[in-house]
Amino acid sequence: MTDTLFDLFDTEGTAGPPSPEERLARIAVTRIADPGDEIVGAWLRERGSQEVVRALVAGERLPRASERRLAGYRLRGQRVDPARDLAAAEALGGRFICPGDPEWPGQLDDLGDQRPYGLWVRGRPSLRMWALRSVAVVGARACTDYGAHMASRLAADLAEAGWIVVSGAAYGIDGAAHRGALSVDGATVGVVACGVDVPYPPGHAELIGRIGEQGLLIGELPPGSHPTRSRFVMRNRVIAALTRGTVVVEAQYRSGSLITARRARQLGRFVMGVPGPCTSSLSQGVHELLCGEAALVTDAREVAELVGSIGADLAPERRGPVVARDLLPADTARVLEAVPGQGGADGGQIARSAGVTTDDTLGRLYELQALGFVERHGERWRLAALNRADGPVGEREPQ
Amino acid sequence: MTDTLFDLFDTEGTAGPPSPEERLARIAVTRIADPGDEIVGAWLRERGSQEVVRALVAGERLPRASERRLAGYRLRGQRVDPARDLAAAEALGGRFICPGDPEWPGQLDDLGDQRPYGLWVRGRPSLRMWALRSVAVVGARACTDYGAHMASRLAADLAEAGWIVVSGAAYGIDGAAHRGALSVDGATVGVVACGVDVPYPPGHAELIGRIGEQGLLIGELPPGSHPTRSRFVMRNRVIAALTRGTVVVEAQYRSGSLITARRARQLGRFVMGVPGPCTSSLSQGVHELLCGEAALVTDAREVAELVGSIGADLAPERRGPVVARDLLPADTARVLEAVPGQGGADGGQIARSAGVTTDDTLGRLYELQALGFVERHGERWRLAALNRADGPVGEREPQ
Repeated sequence: MTDTLFDLFDTEGTAGPPSPEERLARIAVTRIADPGDEIVGAWLRERGSQEVVRALVAGERLPRASERRLAGYRLRGQRVDPARDLAAAEALGGRFICPGDPEWPGQLDDLGDQRPYGLWVRGRPSLRMWALRSVAVVGARACTDYGAHMASRLAADLAEAGWIVVSGAAYGIDGAAHRGALSVDGATVGVVACGVDVPYPPGHAELIGRIGEQGLLIGELPPGSHPTRSRFVMRNRVIAALTRGTVVVEAQYRSGSLITARRARQLGRFVMGVPGPCTSSLSQGVHELLCGEAALVTDAREVAELVGSIGADLAPERRGPVVARDLLPADTARVLEAVPGQGGADGGQIARSAGVTTDDTLGRLYELQALGFVERHGERWRLAALNRADGPVGEREPQ
Repeated sequence: MTDTLFDLFDTEGTAGPPSPEERLARIAVTRIADPGDEIVGAWLRERGSQEVVRALVAGERLPRASERRLAGYRLRGQRVDPARDLAAAEALGGRFICPGDPEWPGQLDDLGDQRPYGLWVRGRPSLRMWALRSVAVVGARACTDYGAHMASRLAADLAEAGWIVVSGAAYGIDGAAHRGALSVDGATVGVVACGVDVPYPPGHAELIGRIGEQGLLIGELPPGSHPTRSRFVMRNRVIAALTRGTVVVEAQYRSGSLITARRARQLGRFVMGVPGPCTSSLSQGVHELLCGEAALVTDAREVAELVGSIGADLAPERRGPVVARDLLPADTARVLEAVPGQGGADGGQIARSAGVTTDDTLGRLYELQALGFVERHGERWRLAALNRADGPVGEREPQ
């Protein structure tokens, strides 16, 4: 992870990148506490992760938690081996990012004390850059052919328009959304409720592998962890917080996707729903949403119109200063060199020209897009208008 | 038409019932001018119908109309025989109502100079009473099975809940809506773009006959008139203005139903849409509507919640004073006598007990409902709560 753009940025509102000890302590917390535990979140805020882990392992009393809960933390704390967890993740090409890291997506801070302790990540691209232009597409596991068709098409069209499609890697709508994005060499992020090394659900082992190769696979749980009902529920808040908006394609009453949608709305994100036949119970949840504050959308263009145009309005607040071209990491600079100004080229052509693998090239192209250097038009990438004209984007100095 | 409730009411904002000459003049206007002609509407407002007809037939110059247009009016004016038209309509059990008539629905005045010159009516019930609690259900002629199912079910459930279903008697959604209402012995109004004696479309001859028998068939055009494209368009404004709200079930872009919906919104009526699969072009118009100000509805309960609860909020402003029980016309009073206070009875039982035909009984029951005397619960009718308790409704004196 040395050769990325993100060493170039400060992260807003944090004290800079975590120390190795701090990182290991946060890894330990992902083993000790369940995701989204607000009591633990408050301790981390008040005392820092190293002190919290030390106190928990030592069996010291910490405020607001019952004896029973503290005993559970102590038991798990005594067994943690964060260095081994990190090594296991790295052996699979994974990493662990936490608040303060340049790759940390700042919008997760909106979750307050429910902010993830850290995130396990598989895949080369920068989560932070990708999340800037991301939309969640979620829905029923037991979806209909109609729902799968709509999710897949929406995701493909969003990806073609340069958006990053985020979903939960589950059966049904989630899988259709990931597959739709992958089908056009688009960018997709799978947010899992287990370890990023655990192929769950089993029938999606191959899909999850592809997401990890071509996109990003992220989760709050350390290697080897399996999903539980509450982990699925807590996972949804990450999808809601990470993205600029959530589209629900099919959902029954009281489904998990509606929880994601509600959370997205609470967080001030856009909430959208794709209508369907009223005769299907899988339309009921979406239609209920649409009777409330959610916007009705029927295609990617409508989604993009709602969540904002790419490039123009997105990046500045969140991503910090735009980098000057000569500060780009070497591989990224090579990819950028290979992007034509006129007509464009597809990912494979650019990869061959840059001498970088296609998957890696695509990841870097999406990052370059986030930085305003390039634009995606369908299958083709070309230099962004401002950049072509030697405009201010390429010339600005970093902070 | 002597034995109706409506002789008991004044009509707001008019100079009282029209004279026989006035009525004949307005009948003549329905032959001379196309429906919704604003120039003619303005003349009628400024000069009165008898003077307008006299001037047109005499070939006098009237303001704002071209020579060519005036010549057309004169030609048609010289051939009119309003007494014969009225006799023809009456021979079929029809009548002609116009502004000032107790049966005239005051909400049509919202159309300004596009207000109908008068309305040809077939069917016993009072249009004015029925319109008070009416909802339009409109949509595509070439609808899908899904659309037909939704329209029919919506109409049936609305009718069961005591609402009057208004539509255009066309193929597709319109026909499904009328049939749905009729299938539960509900009340339905067909607004046609031709003479009420013309079975158009031909394949709906039987349906149109049933609407005229069990419900109301209304139109702006004199006996024998055939529909034209512009007459269909103008007909839509009557549907929009007559009802408390318009529900669009299926509609392609730029369809006539969307014109009705737009008109309804301009008139301050509720506009609602039933969503459908995005993969169907027949959903596109509705979804576009739902992206605007229309409310998404999936069943009759949601429609009724939007357009208002029956009895409580509807009647007072529009219908004038509530009549005292002993002022009801004899047949209506007999029907009311036959309605039980507890448990209820269906239309057939009440008809037998009152010694009135079932169709007539149902028409009067819907009128009694509009007056707050009775309530419909599914198939059964019973005395309204207030009325059962000898509350104020039954005791109030007419104005």
